[in-house]
Parts: sequence; structure tokens; C-alpha cells
Amino acid sequence: MNYRMISYYIGRILLVEAALLVFPAVGALLYNENTLISFALTIAALAVTGLIAINKKPEKNNIYAKEGYVIVALSWILMSLFGAMPFFFSGYIPNFIDAFFETVSGFTTTGSTILRSIEDLPKSLLFWRSFTHWIGGMGILVFVIAIMPKTESNSMHVMRAEVPGPTVGKLVSKLRATARILYGIYCVLTAIQIIMLFAGGMPLFDSIVTSFATAGTGGFAILNNSIEGYNSIYAEMVIAVFMLIFGINFNLYYMIIIKQGKRALKSEELRWYIGIVAAAVIIIALSLISTKHGVADSFRYSFFQVASIITTTGFSTTNFDTWPVIAKFVLVFLMVIGACAGSTGGGIKVSRLMILIKSGLRDIKKAINPRSIETVKVDKVSVEEPVVKSVSVFFATYMIVTAVSIFIVALDGRDIVTTATSVFACIGNIGPGLGAVGPYGNFADFSILSKLILCFDMLAGRLELIPMLMLFSPYAWSRKYS
Amino acid sequence: MNYRMISYYIGRILLVEAALLVFPAVGALLYNENTLISFALTIAALAVTGLIAINKKPEKNNIYAKEGYVIVALSWILMSLFGAMPFFFSGYIPNFIDAFFETVSGFTTTGSTILRSIEDLPKSLLFWRSFTHWIGGMGILVFVIAIMPKTESNSMHVMRAEVPGPTVGKLVSKLRATARILYGIYCVLTAIQIIMLFAGGMPLFDSIVTSFATAGTGGFAILNNSIEGYNSIYAEMVIAVFMLIFGINFNLYYMIIIKQGKRALKSEELRWYIGIVAAAVIIIALSLISTKHGVADSFRYSFFQVASIITTTGFSTTNFDTWPVIAKFVLVFLMVIGACAGSTGGGIKVSRLMILIKSGLRDIKKAINPRSIETVKVDKVSVEEPVVKSVSVFFATYMIVTAVSIFIVALDGRDIVTTATSVFACIGNIGPGLGAVGPYGNFADFSILSKLILCFDMLAGRLELIPMLMLFSPYAWSRKYS
Repeated sequence: MNYRMISYYIGRILLVEAALLVFPAVGALLYNENTLISFALTIAALAVTGLIAINKKPEKNNIYAKEGYVIVALSWILMSLFGAMPFFFSGYIPNFIDAFFETVSGFTTTGSTILRSIEDLPKSLLFWRSFTHWIGGMGILVFVIAIMPKTESNSMHVMRAEVPGPTVGKLVSKLRATARILYGIYCVLTAIQIIMLFAGGMPLFDSIVTSFATAGTGGFAILNNSIEGYNSIYAEMVIAVFMLIFGINFNLYYMIIIKQGKRALKSEELRWYIGIVAAAVIIIALSLISTKHGVADSFRYSFFQVASIITTTGFSTTNFDTWPVIAKFVLVFLMVIGACAGSTGGGIKVSRLMILIKSGLRDIKKAINPRSIETVKVDKVSVEEPVVKSVSVFFATYMIVTAVSIFIVALDGRDIVTTATSVFACIGNIGPGLGAVGPYGNFADFSILSKLILCFDMLAGRLELIPMLMLFSPYAWSRKYS
Repeated sequence: MNYRMISYYIGRILLVEAALLVFPAVGALLYNENTLISFALTIAALAVTGLIAINKKPEKNNIYAKEGYVIVALSWILMSLFGAMPFFFSGYIPNFIDAFFETVSGFTTTGSTILRSIEDLPKSLLFWRSFTHWIGGMGILVFVIAIMPKTESNSMHVMRAEVPGPTVGKLVSKLRATARILYGIYCVLTAIQIIMLFAGGMPLFDSIVTSFATAGTGGFAILNNSIEGYNSIYAEMVIAVFMLIFGINFNLYYMIIIKQGKRALKSEELRWYIGIVAAAVIIIALSLISTKHGVADSFRYSFFQVASIITTTGFSTTNFDTWPVIAKFVLVFLMVIGACAGSTGGGIKVSRLMILIKSGLRDIKKAINPRSIETVKVDKVSVEEPVVKSVSVFFATYMIVTAVSIFIVALDGRDIVTTATSVFACIGNIGPGLGAVGPYGNFADFSILSKLILCFDMLAGRLELIPMLMLFSPYAWSRKYS
């Protein structure tokens, strides 16, 4: 294991985080808030730690898969530890575990909160809280690759560990250019959303932070009752559409830029995604029409909530915890599926579901006719067998981590629905669950142990299991494999 | 597709079922019950249908995998349709769908009941109900192979489709001899249990039917409150130990018979099974000690219930629906895992869990060191890659079938826990779930659609998905693949 290189990389990430914290610090200055000193202290701590970490230049700068995973896992944990400091120092979240939970929830774009009243926070902290979503959405390491020189030769393993999906490809031959294109698309789309929300009458500050939370598919709102608080159909529709946009593989936007829009539209994952959204909206709307609302309101609530949950954002416009049971099951199912690979959304991803179902069907065919040789095809191209297998193993591992987490959280003795959906909501990076962690609830009342497990789940979900599981694997640290 | 051979096979199975129905018919005669005519009618219907089906001898008697699956799926459905007739004709279950549900639940060794009061049934029907467990436990096709001549050359595909587990091997070179050995062990163990229960003071009739339900890991009891009704620690312990015995791979008993007991004890699946049982008993007992019972009672209830649920039997000695939430989650987890491959139990099987976890760990190792070449080993032998992959695909398919079923059952509008655990309990062939389908509840109040879906799940679970899914696959019926 190339420890120096790991330390060097993480050091740079901490320095970038220090730079990013300047934004809320300036905010605190502008709004004349007493949080300024907390931000300053955090920036100082990050700068000192970062500078120490990059002090010794590594002799060899090669990074293999193992180092890539370790760098990603450790930097996300450290980013969250430092990122929690402003909440803690300022006294607005007096328990450090809670502050850490909130920050992990931010960076991983989960959006679960331990705050009983969000509106009590000053603007600078609200900004930082939503900004963590935006940073975490596209990935801070991708950002570092985009802005730092000399990361070209050996960063593919880092990027692979941070970008979601069963396979990761470069858009262009240079990795740094790829990272820049991704961040470029991300910034432009975020800017368009800010303008559209602001144009519709939302205050500028709200437009900015809501767009951050949408772009990262995070879900932190700055009102206690989330998007419901704006009571604006226009804002709801803009946010719903943008949630869906940020849930699509960014490679497709690149295809559109290079005028291959037709190819983008033919993407099988996109078609499945749209199909699942349409089916879910209709099922939920029908269940609402038959029990709670008129036709128009049913579709309005259903469309927003489906977009919010499948993209794993977690905004709400109503208390879906009181919806009919079929609607709740559809939402839980969407929580597990999540958005498209290569988007900012979480969950197991539509492409994995697609490969799982196709390989299931293929295996049934093979059972019927053992001599048949069929491959799983996506976009008319055969998926390599190791990828098919890794998808099945990923799904099984995801379920096992979920099950183990549920057991531990169950020690708190809360009801079954709260316990199970809190884990689903965290590992899928959604935010709210059902029951006591529903859209009108929060995560404040869990024990410290449960909160730490849920933090692990959020990180494991965002980084797609392997980096976080590796930290606990003796193989990662054994010399034998170094 | 060799339709004649399929018809011939199914015809013989129906004739065997007619013969097996003679037992409860004789019972009806002995106890002078008015169900005799219902049994006679059913036997006649089976005999006529069976004789018509075997009328034309097939020209070719080759069976491939596809025919094997179709034979198994269709014969289980037909067996259940005919097996439901005594309940229906006698008027004790006036709705045919309910009678079908009860019979599917019997043959698949699930043990879920639609009866609100089991004790209202006459003894001959109670006997038939429990006897279906015993028949379904080892598998009726295995029985047919054991007793019929000339099945040797082409029955491996049938056996493979009916016997649970990721791989199926012959114990001895002749398939018929293998089937006879399995049934021999099954009969001897059942007889020992009957004697032990009877010796402990349980009435003979109760000892027989309870042993049938234990041997098949079914769970139909003849008292409304299951095994709790006997209020006997001796009976509970005998039943618990025998449930665990019937949850072990029968190959291990064969090893003991041929004096390779040491090899049997080294079986990794057995060790995992014992480990999981021990861990679950301890966790649940601790949760009960801290909330409900004294130490001795906590272990007594916990041991019985863990044995009952992991083996997918479903007997109860207390209303575990009121247990602490951690205990309930452990039970749901055990419902999904199930017993060992090659036993009479259901679920995904311990060996599959073992392969899933090992291949997950292997993939993590591989992520760390991409050049590492490691195979998944069970009992120190490498598991072939197609088996590893098929296990992951099986698990994913199991989860997808579970999810789809939950959606449909959710249309009934019952609470989340009832809805979800009714599906888990049926596809895992357990019997009771939680909530309204808990040990003190029943399945009577589901809609017809939900009952049919749960019947499908019970059959899919018992036959391990592929045979039942194939029936709905165009590939099974297409000439292209025949």
C-alpha cells in the first residue's frame, strides 16, 4: 500500500474542503452571523491537517485499485468529520455524533436529518448543509481530478471508486477532461434550476440552496416541511423535473453536447428509468384517487414524490407516510432501485436492476435449454460476464449490509417500519423513510450506535459498498497484498 | 417438448396421489366420519384422470431439463387442485380457492392456513392436511422415482427440479436407489419422532400428524394454538430437535449410515446452520430476558421458535408477534435464509447464503487486488463459477418475485408488516408471519387475487423458482427451443 500517496491525495482533498468552506464563511460575514468563528476554526483545522498530509511528496505516485478505494473511503470519512465542525463549534448541533450524522447525510446526498427544527439554523449553516449535497453529488474526488494538475496517470482507480454504476468509462481519452466535462454539465444544470426557481418567485437564497439539494439529489430543505412549505405548483414541477434530470446518467448529456442526442435517447437504462417512473406515478396516483385526493392533486403529489424517491433526493410535498399501503410499497421499492448509474442519485441503480432481471431471464432460458449460449445485452451490446456476476454479488451484498444494519438499529426497540425504512433510506441515500422517520419525522431519537451504523450505511450506499467494506477487511491492510 | 412423456409422468403421479388418499379415506371409515364420500370422489377423479393420462405410452422416453421443470411444476399444481377436493366436497372449506390455498400450503410444507378454527375439522381431514406436508417434504416425484420401475434413464432432470439446493448429486450411482435411500431415512426419522412423542404422553393421532408436519417442515398443527396447546416442555423439545434434524441435508445422514460420520460433521453448511441457530437463539433469548420472561423460559421459547422458523416449519409455542422488534427481525431474517439444501426445509438455503457471502468477500478481495485469482470454496472444494453465478441470480430473482408479490398483495390495503411478512412466510414456506398473519392469526382475510399470488409464491419457493417461472415463459412453450 502506497501510504504516502494516500496521505498526499487526502491532504489535497482537505485543502479543497477548506477552500469550499470559504463560501459559507463569507455568507456568515455578509449576514453578520455568529457562526463566522466556527467556520474560521474549521478552515484553519483543515488547512493545517491538509498541509501536514501533503508535506512529504510521495516517491512513487502509482495508485492501484486498492489505494483508490482506501483514498475514497478515508477522504469521505475525514471530509465529514471536518465538515461537521461548524455545526458543532457554533453550538447549533451540540452533540458531535449528531453533527457528524448531519454532515455524512449531506455529503452522501442522503438528506436524513437529526434536526427537529431546521428553521432554527442561521443562513450560513443552512447554506453549508445544502452545499455539502452539491459537493457530494458529483463527488469531491472527481472535483479534485478536475482542478488539480498531474493527476492524470493514476486517478482512474479513484474515479472508479467514487462514480456510481456497474461500469465506469471515460467520456474522452483524458481523465481530467472527463471530470471537467462532468462538472461543467453539473454547474450549468444547477444554474438553470436556480434561475428558473428564482424567476418563479422563490427567494434567491432558497433558490440556490434548493437547487444544490436537487442537483446532488440530496433532499435537505431549509423549511421544516420541505418543499410543501413553498405551496407553489410551479416550484414543485421545476424541482420534480430537475430531480429527474439529475437522476439520469451524465454521459447522456455529454452525448447531446457532441450532437449524438439520438443515441442518448436510445439508451436502454433511460427507457427503463422513464418506464419505472411512469408506472410508479400511475400506480400511486390511482391509489390516491381512490382514497385521498382528486385526480389533479393525486397526480401532482404522486409525480413529485416518485421523482423525489427514485432519484433518492427525498424532498416531500406531503406526508406520504399516511398514503395507502400499496403507494408506500412502491416508494420503498423505488428507494431500493434508485436512479441511473453515472448520475448523482443513489440506490442500486436502474442499470443494475436491468442486468439483474435480464440475467435472471437468461438463466431461466438456460435452465430450459442447457445448451443455449446467450449473453445479457444492454444497448444491443453484450455485457461481459464478470460485470453480470459483479452486479448479482453487489445486489446480494447490498441486501446483506441492509439486513445486518436493520438488526443493529432494531436494538433501539423502535417499530418495524421505522427501523427497516430508516436503513433503506440511509443506504439508498434517500433521506426520509416511513413511520417515525417519515417526511414529518426525523432521525434525532436513534441511539448513538444506530446513528453510527446509519452513517456507515449512507457512506456505503454512496460509495457503492466496496470502499467502506474494504476498510474493515484485513486484506486491505495486509502486507501480503500490497 | 415431449408432451406424451409429460402426460405419462403426471398421470402416474396422480395415480400415486389417489393411492395416498386411501389412508385418510380409511381413517374416515374408522372414525365413521361423513368425509368418506368426499375422499372416495377425489380418489375416483384422480384415478380416471391418471389412467387417461397414461393411456398412450410415449414413443420416445427422453426427458430434458425443460420437460423436467414442466413436469414438476404442473404436477405440483394438479396435485394441489385434486388434493383440495376433499376439503371442498365435504363442505369444511366451502370456497375452492381457500381449499386450494390450504392444500398448496400443505404440499409445499408452508403451513399457512386460511382456517379460523382448525379444531372444527374432522380427524380424517386433519390427517390429510398433515399428510400433504409429509408427502411434499421429500417430494412426490422423488417418491415416484423411488417406487416406479423404468424411471432410471431419464429422471435426473425431474429430481433436480424438485430437490432443493444449488446443486443436486446422486448418493449412489443409481437414481432410484438414491430416492429409496432418501425416503428410507425420511420414514425412519418420522417413525422415531412419532414414538418419542407418543412415549411422552401425546395421543397417538396427535403424535402421528405432528410428526408428519415436523418431518416435512410444514407446520400445520391440529390445535388452534399450535404446539402451545400441548403445554409440554418434553413435546416442545422433541419437536424442536426434530425440526432441526429435518432441516439438515439428508446426504449427511447417508454419510453416517455408510460410516462416514466424521465427514458429515465437517460439512461447512452444517456448521453454518448450527452457528446461525445458536446466534439467533442467544440474541432472541437475551431480548426476551430483558423484556418479557425469566432466563429459562426465554431460552425455551427462543430455541423452539428459532428451530421452527429457520427450518421453515412454522409451529409456535407463543405469540412471537408480541416479541421485541429485534427478535422479530431475527425471525424475518431466518425466514429468508431457511434450512440446509437437500433437506425438507424452504427459504434460500444456508448453502446459498454461504456462497453469497463468500463470493461477496472474494469480490472485495478482487477489488483490492485485481490480479488475484481466487475461487469460492465450500468444504475445501472450489465451487464452479456457473454455480456461484446461479446462486447470485437465484437470490436476486427470489427478491424480485418477493417484491412483485408484495405489490400485488398490498392492493388489499392491509398494513405493511402483515403484507410483507405474508409474502415472506409463503415464498419461504414458513407458515405464519407477523401482524395479522402472526401465529395467532390466519390468511383467511386476503382477497382471492392475493391468495392466488401467495399460492404461486408457495409453489415458487418450494420448487426454487425456475419451474414455476418457466410456466409463464414463452421459451418453455416455443417450438424453437423444443
